[in-house]
Amino acid sequence: MSEEAAARPGNLLANLPQNVPEELTEILASGSGLRVERIVSTGHRSPDDFWYDQHEREWVLLLQGAATLQFADPPESIDLIPGDHVDIAAHRRHRVESTSATEPTVWLAVFYQD
Amino acid sequence: MSEEAAARPGNLLANLPQNVPEELTEILASGSGLRVERIVSTGHRSPDDFWYDQHEREWVLLLQGAATLQFADPPESIDLIPGDHVDIAAHRRHRVESTSATEPTVWLAVFYQD
Repeated sequence: MSEEAAARPGNLLANLPQNVPEELTEILASGSGLRVERIVSTGHRSPDDFWYDQHEREWVLLLQGAATLQFADPPESIDLIPGDHVDIAAHRRHRVESTSATEPTVWLAVFYQD
Repeated sequence: MSEEAAARPGNLLANLPQNVPEELTEILASGSGLRVERIVSTGHRSPDDFWYDQHEREWVLLLQGAATLQFADPPESIDLIPGDHVDIAAHRRHRVESTSATEPTVWLAVFYQD
């Protein structure tokens, strides 16, 4: 056996804030046309009548907590539990209808291009 | 309120196989220079003296189970628990030293380019 150094990797679920004034966004990896982010929500939701309308595609995975995503055209609501993932087409309007009020909600978002 | 259809998204942790002869790989999203995969291991490890040597970068997140990644140059071993993530540079040789023998290990791997 070779001599090996011990190392601790980063952890997306450790040391979560219990209450932040705004959603907490951290870029985990980025490359050509690609960005991986962790987003922590503590009860946050999109303002009424606000819609995200993004030029990038977004693949999103719920890691912890709970959330409801709302989509326009066609109207659709999706309740998310840990492990759930959704691929959001560019310019498909969507908003965060709700996130858990009782524990931090942790999202993994991969923004990418066709 | 508009009338909204109910929908269930895919879930990366549901209906996991308990024992598969080879690691199970599923492409979840792909785009320009980008591929997101779920990999399920049930006790799998890389063969002795086998090293992955990839032309793409790989950002990997352990979602469930446990694993040890081994790296060459410099030699390093990293134990992974759920939530742990590691960014592996292109051509940094690595192998899976072990995955949990008692439950399925679920990886999320994002292959991308600088």
